[in-house]
Amino acid sequence: MARNAFYAQSGGVTAVINASASGVIETWRHYAQQRPDEIGKLYAGRFGILGALTEELIDTTHESDEAIAALAHTPGAVFGSCRYKLSDPAKDRSQYERLIEVFRAHDIGYFFYNGGNDSMDTALKVSEIAAEMNYPIHCIGIPKTIDNDLVETDCCPGFGSAAKYVAVAMREAMRDVEAMAGTSTRVFVMEVMGRHVGWLTAAASLAAEAGGPPILLLLPEVPFNERAFIDRVSACVTKHECCLIAVSEGLRDGNDRLLGDTGHLDAFGHAQLGGIGARIAELVRGLLGYKVHWALPDYLQRSARHLASTTDFLHAQGVGRSAVEMAMQGKSGIMMTVVRHAEHPYSWEIGTAPLQAVANREKMLPREFISDDGFGVSEACKRYLMPLLDGEEYPPYRNGLPDYVRFKNVMVEPKLSPFVP
Amino acid sequence: MARNAFYAQSGGVTAVINASASGVIETWRHYAQQRPDEIGKLYAGRFGILGALTEELIDTTHESDEAIAALAHTPGAVFGSCRYKLSDPAKDRSQYERLIEVFRAHDIGYFFYNGGNDSMDTALKVSEIAAEMNYPIHCIGIPKTIDNDLVETDCCPGFGSAAKYVAVAMREAMRDVEAMAGTSTRVFVMEVMGRHVGWLTAAASLAAEAGGPPILLLLPEVPFNERAFIDRVSACVTKHECCLIAVSEGLRDGNDRLLGDTGHLDAFGHAQLGGIGARIAELVRGLLGYKVHWALPDYLQRSARHLASTTDFLHAQGVGRSAVEMAMQGKSGIMMTVVRHAEHPYSWEIGTAPLQAVANREKMLPREFISDDGFGVSEACKRYLMPLLDGEEYPPYRNGLPDYVRFKNVMVEPKLSPFVP
Repeated sequence: MARNAFYAQSGGVTAVINASASGVIETWRHYAQQRPDEIGKLYAGRFGILGALTEELIDTTHESDEAIAALAHTPGAVFGSCRYKLSDPAKDRSQYERLIEVFRAHDIGYFFYNGGNDSMDTALKVSEIAAEMNYPIHCIGIPKTIDNDLVETDCCPGFGSAAKYVAVAMREAMRDVEAMAGTSTRVFVMEVMGRHVGWLTAAASLAAEAGGPPILLLLPEVPFNERAFIDRVSACVTKHECCLIAVSEGLRDGNDRLLGDTGHLDAFGHAQLGGIGARIAELVRGLLGYKVHWALPDYLQRSARHLASTTDFLHAQGVGRSAVEMAMQGKSGIMMTVVRHAEHPYSWEIGTAPLQAVANREKMLPREFISDDGFGVSEACKRYLMPLLDGEEYPPYRNGLPDYVRFKNVMVEPKLSPFVP
Repeated sequence: MARNAFYAQSGGVTAVINASASGVIETWRHYAQQRPDEIGKLYAGRFGILGALTEELIDTTHESDEAIAALAHTPGAVFGSCRYKLSDPAKDRSQYERLIEVFRAHDIGYFFYNGGNDSMDTALKVSEIAAEMNYPIHCIGIPKTIDNDLVETDCCPGFGSAAKYVAVAMREAMRDVEAMAGTSTRVFVMEVMGRHVGWLTAAASLAAEAGGPPILLLLPEVPFNERAFIDRVSACVTKHECCLIAVSEGLRDGNDRLLGDTGHLDAFGHAQLGGIGARIAELVRGLLGYKVHWALPDYLQRSARHLASTTDFLHAQGVGRSAVEMAMQGKSGIMMTVVRHAEHPYSWEIGTAPLQAVANREKMLPREFISDDGFGVSEACKRYLMPLLDGEEYPPYRNGLPDYVRFKNVMVEPKLSPFVP
């Protein structure tokens, strides 16, 4: 009997996670046509793994091949995503047992989970508990995160496009500030996502141009030193008339406390709303007296499909396609990876790593990628980053705006009694 | 004897003001080659009109034709701009007399001023005072502003690209919020520039898609009604699971006070730093309990050359080129305009208007362009806006980033004693 697949998107979205979804679905369709006796339908979870718990499954066979192709250039997460961590099975296995129950009811023999390190942990546990329960299923992780913090892979699909957004935005803001510095704003601060790691903030350094001002970075890996920072800003304005700063939302003080959580920021609203950018701007204005502007791109940086990098797009599509190929070869318990063969010219291929090696681990910006003074990155870091931003993978436009696809998202008839997670 | 020209960029920059500069310079070069006995050099003001007062003139002949061509796709203001309003000549004519003195010292017979309504007032006064002083000069205004608030022109170069940025950013953020609304952020707020007029905020409405949520607008032309707003947000989340809001930095209360200036916002920092977006986000979170995110694109929206609209680019280039053509025909005391002939298919041409008709006037969003409930725009407004965003005028890229030109900006030797404005 033909077995079905379950695909879910997890955590914060990226500009290219739907390119992975598109790669999974088109490859699955290819095999479903070739081997209809073995390969059934591909279902997707409504709002990620929650859809499996609540038995809200989307039947992707209702979407046309054209819609699946257009999905590759559409940002967001077309089936919905969620921030939801399953309970620890050592304490409570009921959620995992429910997942297996839903999978069994719908003949699901393949589980593709598209997310970050939490999601790889979930995929690993599903594979382990399914084995204990004698339920045959292939579990494959598909990496995704703008944070670029997964181990075992050279980079994470989603990061390259967010990095391109950050670098382009900073380069353009730099031209604005340089033009006005004579009589107006001298210091510009941009707050960048990445709660624990500075990869995305590091990408702002690529905005610098020969003959222009440097870009100062405030990385979460480097404890914030107010005095050293203010001295650097002052020196930069003296030399270049202006100063550009990229600050990570995860900036920490010497006691490893998030500066957004210390209470300094209460006046600016809840930390969740962003605020370290305002805090840094206010600090510079107060201590140095310069006119300061700050920007908070927030979701724009992770949904900017209009500025996706071709490298990142190909990675995202590749890990999606190869995940299905691996499943067809009988593989399970692995995450797809990107393997770098050479930097210049850049060459890469898709590889795999055991889920055990990936789950719940985090890749910080290594010390050798950070400049000696802590306010920038090394040349090695720039060489690592640059190919990930390469190429402009523009979406089609209609009436001056990107033409993104909307799915029907037809739900599968539930077979089980309701479950409240 | 050949007479020279002075060109200056004024006020906040746009993604395409350098396309106007490029149009001015290439057309000037054309005439300078054809009529070397009449047409001399084109000088540009360092930091705008300030460069004329301080005699800091840039000799543009040092830039190659390739650099002038590349200028057309480079954001910012390549010669520098400023926010500086000359003193009222009815009280103090010394600044205007200094301008004429500098012009006379450098044989400047043409004054091209690229800016908004303040700048058109300056250009008008220069032409009047020069006439009184028997100094022959042709004064031509070249419109520029992301605010779109100049009268006598159908639209303002710079607006279309900023509008495209705002609409694209909101469309992409919408996909992000829709994907996560099941368990995370339900309300997203984006703060948009436009201190007095809502044109740019109105452009966010174009982000809406059939089958998706509406975009709520908070326009400076509509006094903020907290109760009605909160009711609308609540209804929108109930129906669409999420709500997207574009708020103008110029939002006002019923007493015409800027909400960013009332003291409500002190806790979020100085109004100059942005803050109405945070205030609206906090209001929704506090009264409705939803998770809210907010974005402050700040300078990114006016320097996003990577997302320039072709219509806007052609307008900007066209007003620059035609300004020189008009000067060659002996015209003075005019501003170049964009004239709309038809909406669909869009057709237009460059026109002119007297500087007197333009100076110091401001075009608000007309009542018939605002929806009855005040939280959106009419279909007529959308029909007006859409052609202005049309076409993608991409810059060239190198190593994954836009390849913007840097000028040498070689200064002309001063001939006069220093002047401190």
